Amino acid sequence: MGLLNRDFIQLLLKYQINNDLFLGEFAIEKENVRVDSSGNLARTPHPKAFGKKMENPYIKTDFAESQIEMITPVFDTINKTYNFLNTLHDIVALELKEEYLWPGSNPPLLPDEDEIPVADMGDPIENKYRWELVNKYGRVKQLYSGIHYNFSFPQKFLRKWYEAESTEQSFKEFKDATYLKVVRNTLKYRWLLIYLTGASPAFHQTFLEECVQQAEETAQDSFLIDDMISLRNSEFGYRNINPFFISFDSLEEYLRDIKALIEAGELLNAKEYYSAVRLKPADSGDYFASLRENGIAYLELRLLDLNPLEPVGISQETMRFIHLFLIYMLVKKDEPYDQEEHILASYQSDILNRNGHLDSFIAPDGTKIRPQEKALELLKDMEEMLLLLNPGAEEYLQVLEINRERIRNKNLLIASQIKKKINDSSFIQFHLGKAREYLLKSMEHGYQFKGYEDLELSTQLLLKAAIKRGIEFNILDRDENFIVLKKGMNTEYVKQATKTSLDSYITALIMENKLVTKHVLEQQGIRVPNGRSYRNISEAIADYELYQNKPIVIKPKSTNFGIGITIFTDTFTKGDFQLAVQMAFEHDKTILLEEFISGKEYRFLVMGDEVVGILHRVPANVIGDGQHTIAQLAEDKNKDPLRGKGYRTPLEKIQLGEAEKLFLKNQGKGFMDVPEKGEVVYLRENSNISTGGDSLDYTDEIPDSYKKIAVSAAKAAGAVFCGVDMMIEDMKNEASEINYGIIEINFNPAIHIHCYPYKGKNRHADEKILDLLFQKSKQHVNSEN
Amino acid sequence: MGLLNRDFIQLLLKYQINNDLFLGEFAIEKENVRVDSSGNLARTPHPKAFGKKMENPYIKTDFAESQIEMITPVFDTINKTYNFLNTLHDIVALELKEEYLWPGSNPPLLPDEDEIPVADMGDPIENKYRWELVNKYGRVKQLYSGIHYNFSFPQKFLRKWYEAESTEQSFKEFKDATYLKVVRNTLKYRWLLIYLTGASPAFHQTFLEECVQQAEETAQDSFLIDDMISLRNSEFGYRNINPFFISFDSLEEYLRDIKALIEAGELLNAKEYYSAVRLKPADSGDYFASLRENGIAYLELRLLDLNPLEPVGISQETMRFIHLFLIYMLVKKDEPYDQEEHILASYQSDILNRNGHLDSFIAPDGTKIRPQEKALELLKDMEEMLLLLNPGAEEYLQVLEINRERIRNKNLLIASQIKKKINDSSFIQFHLGKAREYLLKSMEHGYQFKGYEDLELSTQLLLKAAIKRGIEFNILDRDENFIVLKKGMNTEYVKQATKTSLDSYITALIMENKLVTKHVLEQQGIRVPNGRSYRNISEAIADYELYQNKPIVIKPKSTNFGIGITIFTDTFTKGDFQLAVQMAFEHDKTILLEEFISGKEYRFLVMGDEVVGILHRVPANVIGDGQHTIAQLAEDKNKDPLRGKGYRTPLEKIQLGEAEKLFLKNQGKGFMDVPEKGEVVYLRENSNISTGGDSLDYTDEIPDSYKKIAVSAAKAAGAVFCGVDMMIEDMKNEASEINYGIIEINFNPAIHIHCYPYKGKNRHADEKILDLLFQKSKQHVNSEN
Repeated sequence: MGLLNRDFIQLLLKYQINNDLFLGEFAIEKENVRVDSSGNLARTPHPKAFGKKMENPYIKTDFAESQIEMITPVFDTINKTYNFLNTLHDIVALELKEEYLWPGSNPPLLPDEDEIPVADMGDPIENKYRWELVNKYGRVKQLYSGIHYNFSFPQKFLRKWYEAESTEQSFKEFKDATYLKVVRNTLKYRWLLIYLTGASPAFHQTFLEECVQQAEETAQDSFLIDDMISLRNSEFGYRNINPFFISFDSLEEYLRDIKALIEAGELLNAKEYYSAVRLKPADSGDYFASLRENGIAYLELRLLDLNPLEPVGISQETMRFIHLFLIYMLVKKDEPYDQEEHILASYQSDILNRNGHLDSFIAPDGTKIRPQEKALELLKDMEEMLLLLNPGAEEYLQVLEINRERIRNKNLLIASQIKKKINDSSFIQFHLGKAREYLLKSMEHGYQFKGYEDLELSTQLLLKAAIKRGIEFNILDRDENFIVLKKGMNTEYVKQATKTSLDSYITALIMENKLVTKHVLEQQGIRVPNGRSYRNISEAIADYELYQNKPIVIKPKSTNFGIGITIFTDTFTKGDFQLAVQMAFEHDKTILLEEFISGKEYRFLVMGDEVVGILHRVPANVIGDGQHTIAQLAEDKNKDPLRGKGYRTPLEKIQLGEAEKLFLKNQGKGFMDVPEKGEVVYLRENSNISTGGDSLDYTDEIPDSYKKIAVSAAKAAGAVFCGVDMMIEDMKNEASEINYGIIEINFNPAIHIHCYPYKGKNRHADEKILDLLFQKSKQHVNSEN
Repeated sequence: MGLLNRDFIQLLLKYQINNDLFLGEFAIEKENVRVDSSGNLARTPHPKAFGKKMENPYIKTDFAESQIEMITPVFDTINKTYNFLNTLHDIVALELKEEYLWPGSNPPLLPDEDEIPVADMGDPIENKYRWELVNKYGRVKQLYSGIHYNFSFPQKFLRKWYEAESTEQSFKEFKDATYLKVVRNTLKYRWLLIYLTGASPAFHQTFLEECVQQAEETAQDSFLIDDMISLRNSEFGYRNINPFFISFDSLEEYLRDIKALIEAGELLNAKEYYSAVRLKPADSGDYFASLRENGIAYLELRLLDLNPLEPVGISQETMRFIHLFLIYMLVKKDEPYDQEEHILASYQSDILNRNGHLDSFIAPDGTKIRPQEKALELLKDMEEMLLLLNPGAEEYLQVLEINRERIRNKNLLIASQIKKKINDSSFIQFHLGKAREYLLKSMEHGYQFKGYEDLELSTQLLLKAAIKRGIEFNILDRDENFIVLKKGMNTEYVKQATKTSLDSYITALIMENKLVTKHVLEQQGIRVPNGRSYRNISEAIADYELYQNKPIVIKPKSTNFGIGITIFTDTFTKGDFQLAVQMAFEHDKTILLEEFISGKEYRFLVMGDEVVGILHRVPANVIGDGQHTIAQLAEDKNKDPLRGKGYRTPLEKIQLGEAEKLFLKNQGKGFMDVPEKGEVVYLRENSNISTGGDSLDYTDEIPDSYKKIAVSAAKAAGAVFCGVDMMIEDMKNEASEINYGIIEINFNPAIHIHCYPYKGKNRHADEKILDLLFQKSKQHVNSEN
């Protein structure tokens, strides 16, 4: 005997809107408190890198200064939301210096209550509100951290459904009624969600005294109360002081009830009503006016604990279960939810939360309740709904199966798993261990923006740097890495990370054209390879005598990938010369003949007036240890998470293919040879990163005299962002007029190679771009005042 | 018995530098006085469009305010120099309002001497010098106008020859000796040049009284003295008051003699020594110091008259003859040129100049001279030289032949031809007629930069506008239309006329991307076609209902040439829709579905804050006259010099090919039909200029409300230069929120179409670019002060 509304299901099927029902819009907010390496609540200020708390839409603080709140934008899939949350978490975790993100809902080692730092929001109203909460609820309970799950049905679905119903209601009324039904049902069945997602069974002795009194100590510092599922959702949780009842029968009644409580002085504002589900309007203006005018835009589910078994506190599987649950709350028959029902639902939730291993209990109305049985019934209903409306949704069916197992075997409940792990070590050690584990995970893929791996690495890095400082973004064209960044009144369009408003169009075109680049640099007295351009073969051949016996390069004017280029470092015959000229002309109407400048090539990344990074690239290689074969050494080197395949990582894996085999063979070597300790074995001639080469950072080693030249070269072309390729004879000597030469200036230089070199520091080129972009806008605004 | 130096010829051949000798560097300076439509000397000031006289390197004034001087840069071929001179002439001629360039050396109708306006150079030193000349020589003679031919041997040749000689001289000494030899020989044989190029046989009665007294009146206003070849080179010409002798035996002697004359008060400065050939240093600093330090850089041949039979005063043939003559002066044996020789040469030159039809005369030393005989001997020598050193130089051989004919038949002499034409009408009528004829010629190809026709028309126009206002240019990359413009301290790099430093790189990229363009315009509340982008077929098909029954366009995101685009203006089936979507996806990974906005399409050319021009394009068409066939009407329309083939003209010729035939057939018409008077017959569906379409200027007709929108659209993208394509429902109505739509903003808009439309005014977009570019630089400089 299920609870499904079969008429509704028929309607959905008839109008073919059943699939649309399973779409939705999702966003996650989560808090983690910062701790030191011993698990003490951090008392350092919120990191400056995140900018002003009130201005960063992604990274704020909640109640306490050390309670970081992370907020994802709204996405149309769970996967996207989850990925973004991961990236947000990585960004925050990697910015903390010698601190960790505490992975659980219950607080870490706490100082005396007075020493818990209340967040300074830099805003008098926000600060006042926090101090009012201190006075009302104390500081300790405010440190409970959790997850808010924001959800709305797809507009497209609501519209189609509304039309199918042909009701007399307005669309707004219809939509509000829909969400209110979901809220009522959710409140009634919230015990199921807490039961399956609760993840705060244990706490530390420095936490609430009232809890400690009722708890038993298990391992070292860990305290437990019965078979607690979620301390945060229990009677010891963060709740309103008096248990209010608010009607969710209509939006009008809801607003009336809240307003009455505020007027009665029970609540400071609507926010202070701590319901498991909150109604949210579309905008952040006046709560009452917004809801009344435009209705409910989405629901905020507030009962989720941070799951310390998950790197970011929640799994995709849990996110899916909640989604399914909310859909079910809509598809289920409507049940009344009055004050009596509310008390019953709260009782049921509390008792099960406190003792998740209970087989049955008596409700206040005298009925005997068997929670597992009821839970399995609800899951069976959800499965039936799924099979009727969206039978292909494998991942949802799997989620149901996982949760069914947890209900059947209570030891599999998330809270039970955590309790066991805490008992095996200690409350602090378990959480700290997880915190460290997750930090390493964040570090491994620090260069990546999860969910945006199709973008160029440079753009991924720039976006992450933007998020860190609270610059909002929008991806305008994914294929082209075209984004827009917004901070306050400033809007900056950016393509491929370094194509911005700071460079003029002609600057880019100057760099694109070798002839023009050389002209521009020569005008500034910067050394470039001497040479001339030719537009036909005979002209070039006629100048043979000019080049004879000199080291020269012969190349097509505009190809950039080494195609059609010949280098003569030694003597050459007129025949050789002629062939090389002909080959170059096969690739362009104009060719260049230039002197060959010897030395090592370095890439100077210039941004504004500064050389941000200098890299030298060396061909794919391994260094012998006297024990392992070349193949083994390469395999080992390839384990570096910076190395991948297909340009999705800062470095590429060393290949052991035909090219490498041949190159070794020419040296009389093979893959199975064991090089001596310290012996460097090269596997390629070219130093391209794309064929497994290494990028070595020389930013601190190269004398300033070369950096000045690189900056002058950029200025000569008018460039703010560029990569200057310079040959340096010997970087131990200061630059003179003849011991260097600039062979190219490149527009749109890659930045990731300077952030994640094979050897050397992260030069934070991503941050520098934002410094320049938003400093400019600021100046612009100032100059207008 | 020739005069050739056979040892030298052997040396050239031995070292294979004979061909290099025939290269050279050339520049021309020429003066034309401005006249009104009756042939009176213009007394208006030098046109403002040419900027400050002292700052424009191409267009200045000489002595008189109405004596325009045009100066070409140095080129490595005669052809390039000649072409540039033509363009310079066109630029000047087209800028004059109701005035003409007087095509002859002898002045037009003159006012009283006091009323001849002396040029105001805006420079006290230059002004003072002119007034000193007024006092010394009067104003009338200064109005003689002529051509200066600047020439140097190629550096490459001089170097190779110097090395072949292995002399003890320094290269500078060697080079100076070479040029001095040429000067001495040229002075000795200058009579030949004057004889063959002289073109000022007649003059007007308002000219020099002393001339009139010796002359006879021929036709109306025309006065002639004997068989005068060149009045300007005669004893009545502009000469130093005393006949000085200056030694050209060595640079030292030359400088010593000049200096002595200045010290004696005979000359104001070195410039006042009016020799037929002048030695020139490389730079324009102190004449003596420059010559002494760096030697002679080039020779200035000053004896050439303006040839009124030639549009620009000189033909390429004459330029080649002079080149050959100068080479001959080097290859010829050295002959002494002392004071005695100088007097003899001057006598010979004068007597032959005054009576070009003389068969023989007695020189002061008693020898009988037969000028024709001597001239033919010299030409024979030149021919022999040519056959020995450069036998393939056809055009030089032709030039010799032409001049041989002139010597043999004196009526063919340039001066004789002119005399005849003047006698047939009058001095003023002949010259005015030519002036008008040449102005029409200049007008016909006003859009063209001769010698630079391989550049895009927009770049040709921009360069001409730059020359007009004295902005120097350099072509950095011809294939790419990449130029640099310089004025004083300001340097601007420009590619394809409108890619400049004024636009930011991201602005160009925004416009390149339709998704981003729409986003940016929508943000500013500008109407663009509503629509969405799709990244896969099924997503697009799923939205079929959204588009059903609406006029829509389905197109690939980034193709620009109509490929893969489907427009549904009426109803369409889901099948049609699916096919259109599939086709669009064949051309891009992303497609756009947009509402179709109806109306006529207009191109708004926005520059800075201004709409510079608005064009509407219509398909190739003819308008009937009730008499001619469609084919005849098309042929007639194609006679417009604006129409050409292969995008070298502002419009393309109407084709009468298969496409046109088919299009007419569908209308039940054929090429041989005779349309009624006033009937418009279209020959194409598409309105592209490239298929013979017409460009119609609507700049003054379109209401300002649309112009404001176009400027806002440009600003939204941050563009200084762009082409806004707008659909307008009915241009008679002011713009509302719904009666227009912007379908594209284009970077790098063509400007020539707005300068040379089929119907409408020249909107001078070329000038506007320069206004903005150089106004910016000026502000920049100012803000730095």
